[in-house]
Amino acid sequence: MTLALDPAAQDLLFREARTANTFTDEPVTEEQVQAIYDLVKYGPTAFNQSPLRLTLLRSPESRERLLAHMAEGNVPKTRKAPLTAVLSYDLDFHERLPELFPHAPHIKDAFFAEESTRESAGALNAALQAGYFILGVRSAGLAVGPMTGFDHDGVDKEFFGDGRQRVLLVANIGKPGPDAFAPRSPRLSYDDVVTAL
Amino acid sequence: MTLALDPAAQDLLFREARTANTFTDEPVTEEQVQAIYDLVKYGPTAFNQSPLRLTLLRSPESRERLLAHMAEGNVPKTRKAPLTAVLSYDLDFHERLPELFPHAPHIKDAFFAEESTRESAGALNAALQAGYFILGVRSAGLAVGPMTGFDHDGVDKEFFGDGRQRVLLVANIGKPGPDAFAPRSPRLSYDDVVTAL
Repeated sequence: MTLALDPAAQDLLFREARTANTFTDEPVTEEQVQAIYDLVKYGPTAFNQSPLRLTLLRSPESRERLLAHMAEGNVPKTRKAPLTAVLSYDLDFHERLPELFPHAPHIKDAFFAEESTRESAGALNAALQAGYFILGVRSAGLAVGPMTGFDHDGVDKEFFGDGRQRVLLVANIGKPGPDAFAPRSPRLSYDDVVTAL
Repeated sequence: MTLALDPAAQDLLFREARTANTFTDEPVTEEQVQAIYDLVKYGPTAFNQSPLRLTLLRSPESRERLLAHMAEGNVPKTRKAPLTAVLSYDLDFHERLPELFPHAPHIKDAFFAEESTRESAGALNAALQAGYFILGVRSAGLAVGPMTGFDHDGVDKEFFGDGRQRVLLVANIGKPGPDAFAPRSPRLSYDDVVTAL
């Protein structure tokens, strides 16, 4: 037992979890999303900057606004998923830093006064949080279908008209439906990925 | 019980896990890193592109090469950590796509012929994988100290002289030592982060 994590949890999060392409009609409740957020919010980010924002598309109208920007192959499943979340990062995440990193409130102005710095830091740290969120959805016994196939500028203009957020990915969430999963694709070997110096 | 994940696993990965700033001398074995990789490799990426690469700095010489590029505050802990990993992404990840996404081998040329596309896709998807990896280290009962405070261009030149990889972050890994943890900083509330439409 090299890993401390329970084998059932390994399966739930990684080994048996799969990207879902169809979903049942069973709703994803607000309580479930809250429980997921209240778990994954503890994942680390640089200076605790926590730039990830979630826009939940619950109404048919909001879902249609998104579909206009999705790649064709992503439209049917995104129309039918019980919940679709737009994962973005806040370009003004630094405004909350004095509260989020209270022992060094000067970080806000010392490191993050420039928007270009916030762009690169926000994109990286929100993507780490997106990774935590994907596993968090799985921790709730739900399947997730993360997608990057959409018009990013279009989604930004549609949902973040003030220009203060940038979309990272869109994720369908729910219980897997019939034929939800493609066959598992191979992974790179340890020796392909790891170099020891 | 809104979450399916066992509470002990929730604690191990998120609630009780903390970013470590000191470590004991206990080595991190190759077997442990292999077990972590063999778990987190299943985390999803777009088209299974799997761009993350890990460079493990095991020798004192390789560690010193890194320290020259680290922000001053990150030097002592990075010198002493039992293991330091450089997390980067491969700009040529598309070369493996015919093998990694065998049911659509045309994706390599149709979507990823341009290096600029691979830069943005690789950075996002490797950051998702970095999120999985951080939780994977914790799943092995180890603490991780991820850092972005270093000269990124300097690290790229030092370790990826051929220009075909870009560093994302550097992570110290080991068992937490004395006074390893700063007090837990506050997190944003659900209502701060989530908008429902």
